[in-house]
Amino acid sequence: MSPAPVEADFAAALSAIRNSAPLIHNMTNIVVANLTANALLALGASPAMVENTEEAAELAAIAGALVVNLGTLSPDWAAAMRLATLSANAAKRPWLLDPVAVGALGYRTRLAADLLRHRPAIIRGNASEISALAGYAAGGKGVDSTLASDAAVEAAQLLARNSGAVVVVSGAVDYVTDGSRVVGIANGHAIMSRVTGMGCTASAIGGAYLAVIKDPFRAAVLAMVTMGVAGEAAFAKAQAPGTFQTAFIDALYQIQAGDLAGGMRLS
Amino acid sequence: MSPAPVEADFAAALSAIRNSAPLIHNMTNIVVANLTANALLALGASPAMVENTEEAAELAAIAGALVVNLGTLSPDWAAAMRLATLSANAAKRPWLLDPVAVGALGYRTRLAADLLRHRPAIIRGNASEISALAGYAAGGKGVDSTLASDAAVEAAQLLARNSGAVVVVSGAVDYVTDGSRVVGIANGHAIMSRVTGMGCTASAIGGAYLAVIKDPFRAAVLAMVTMGVAGEAAFAKAQAPGTFQTAFIDALYQIQAGDLAGGMRLS
Amino acid sequence: MSPAPVEADFAAALSAIRNSAPLIHNMTNIVVANLTANALLALGASPAMVENTEEAAELAAIAGALVVNLGTLSPDWAAAMRLATLSANAAKRPWLLDPVAVGALGYRTRLAADLLRHRPAIIRGNASEISALAGYAAGGKGVDSTLASDAAVEAAQLLARNSGAVVVVSGAVDYVTDGSRVVGIANGHAIMSRVTGMGCTASAIGGAYLAVIKDPFRAAVLAMVTMGVAGEAAFAKAQAPGTFQTAFIDALYQIQAGDLAGGMRLS
Repeated sequence: MSPAPVEADFAAALSAIRNSAPLIHNMTNIVVANLTANALLALGASPAMVENTEEAAELAAIAGALVVNLGTLSPDWAAAMRLATLSANAAKRPWLLDPVAVGALGYRTRLAADLLRHRPAIIRGNASEISALAGYAAGGKGVDSTLASDAAVEAAQLLARNSGAVVVVSGAVDYVTDGSRVVGIANGHAIMSRVTGMGCTASAIGGAYLAVIKDPFRAAVLAMVTMGVAGEAAFAKAQAPGTFQTAFIDALYQIQAGDLAGGMRLS
Repeated sequence: MSPAPVEADFAAALSAIRNSAPLIHNMTNIVVANLTANALLALGASPAMVENTEEAAELAAIAGALVVNLGTLSPDWAAAMRLATLSANAAKRPWLLDPVAVGALGYRTRLAADLLRHRPAIIRGNASEISALAGYAAGGKGVDSTLASDAAVEAAQLLARNSGAVVVVSGAVDYVTDGSRVVGIANGHAIMSRVTGMGCTASAIGGAYLAVIKDPFRAAVLAMVTMGVAGEAAFAKAQAPGTFQTAFIDALYQIQAGDLAGGMRLS
Repeated sequence: MSPAPVEADFAAALSAIRNSAPLIHNMTNIVVANLTANALLALGASPAMVENTEEAAELAAIAGALVVNLGTLSPDWAAAMRLATLSANAAKRPWLLDPVAVGALGYRTRLAADLLRHRPAIIRGNASEISALAGYAAGGKGVDSTLASDAAVEAAQLLARNSGAVVVVSGAVDYVTDGSRVVGIANGHAIMSRVTGMGCTASAIGGAYLAVIKDPFRAAVLAMVTMGVAGEAAFAKAQAPGTFQTAFIDALYQIQAGDLAGGMRLS
């Protein structure tokens, strides 16, 4: 793709999501399950949260895309993530890895490294997470990054080349890279870091775009622009985090291709 | 009952819920646990979410009603659901089954069939779920129905006769049947399908009415009217799904018998 | 401390939270995980929810404070709580116990008694929970108290003396005691009992103050004043529970030391 999408690209993707309501298998955490389900429904997709070993592989094989978020693991969930990503691969379904707190905790760091072998289409995390997953020594503080996103661009490129995935580093500027190309997206608002699960929501939205766009690089760029422009629209309505969260869901529901193309700030 | 409740019926039920605050044991999923707890509290009931094998049977035996929702299973949760429904039966406590995504995934389809033997008072699902549970070949797409509610009325009647439960099919029109009688409830708004957990919330509210009304058919009708009228009141306040969800909880808190009797549209 | 904090005490604590964003390890339940994470972020802390046996001890050893909430247990979660509290103790990190529904269910009542041996800095619960944990026969109804907070002050003092913890009894008036001193805090609004997780949120906020204040008695008083004054500010904006919940998060984000010192009503 040319790195800069135009209005017709957003229109085609939004129409595809809103008309086909792709099933997004979202293996996510107990903190953000409600928010990310509502974000997917508001945008037009059909979310299903299934994290157990009995069912995860079955659902992953029929979903439009799979999102694997390591936020709140359990032994059964970790095993289910291995099965689901293997199943998605076998069924040629794209999947996205959100390596929450990787680098800060050993168990999930090893799990994420294993899951990489099942070839995610997109990896999205904050600067600490992406740096850790790329093999750099850069642990975060719990689930929050201790690095600015700019500091992890090199790590993201290395991780993209080594994993074959498109890598997204979230932050004040979001970066998307496939190892060679790098696009920065300067949308969004600082208040988003004061609402839990905005990164997880970006991953869920990434899953929705992955289900309707073949090129993961394009899907990632469109998803991050959508998050950022919706965040700006929500902040215009609500300047504190409680009301912002509800306004953000409203914005995803109301957003149109013209808003995205017109509001997008790439670098 | 005569199929059409009158204001005095709503007044008696709401007073019973608001004065006695019945304990509702709600075994539900990680996506909707917060929403359904808030819905029960807003209406006046006292929710308790306990899903583990060590405690579920103990709580089910003392609760006013039990709600079993299959949304996000785990091996321990599934075992706890078997124990809790058995315990509710032994203690002669009514329970409601919400067969989320039954028909779409094999494990939960088998679990739901097993749980039927513990004799739920009410089964509430969408058209795909009810059709699958009745033995019709009608898998949904993940947690969403691929059928309109009208298409599942015959399946619902069959399921009601075979299980002994009152069966509710949610959709644009909600249908309640005990196998012979069928009541349609045309309240609600399409935006409710864009907010996660509205069906799960209907089941939770069904549990609250079950705890104070002996006749499960009447309890189911009153619950579905309450959901629909509260949904209409919320939509009058908020036309997008984020703000709608908070307005819906407010509406459950503020709703009065006169609103329900006056707004009810039966067919 | 003198029992009555002044504006400078609130200012120092709020600045410490907002400037250092302490990592709060919050082992909490599926109902309130989102709300309590957002409450901590809104106040300025950095929450991380990790409940599994592979990671809980590792995180507890590096967090500013640990909060252990028994709301929705599983076998793995219970084991992780034993490991995490032991680890917090070994690392000299303060931790807070929220004994949800202790007294009403046997398994968690035994677990809570065991966890007491790992020396929590603060125990916060409703009157039924505190009475049960103190050894009084006083089971609640599910997660709700059947006693007014005044009725549990004696039990709280006994529990404080026996456990070495500061004990908080939440209710219309919140009481904080170390076994000898007792402070009553008459802030808050009755609508808070109609929103799920307000008690769990008080515990989470208690964790944030514990991370920046050495004296657990002072930390508990400041936390309960913060909850109550924020609740009053939210009720001024929203008088029904759905909109109240979002207004409450906004209030935690906006609240200043002068609001707390000026609004505080101690007895």
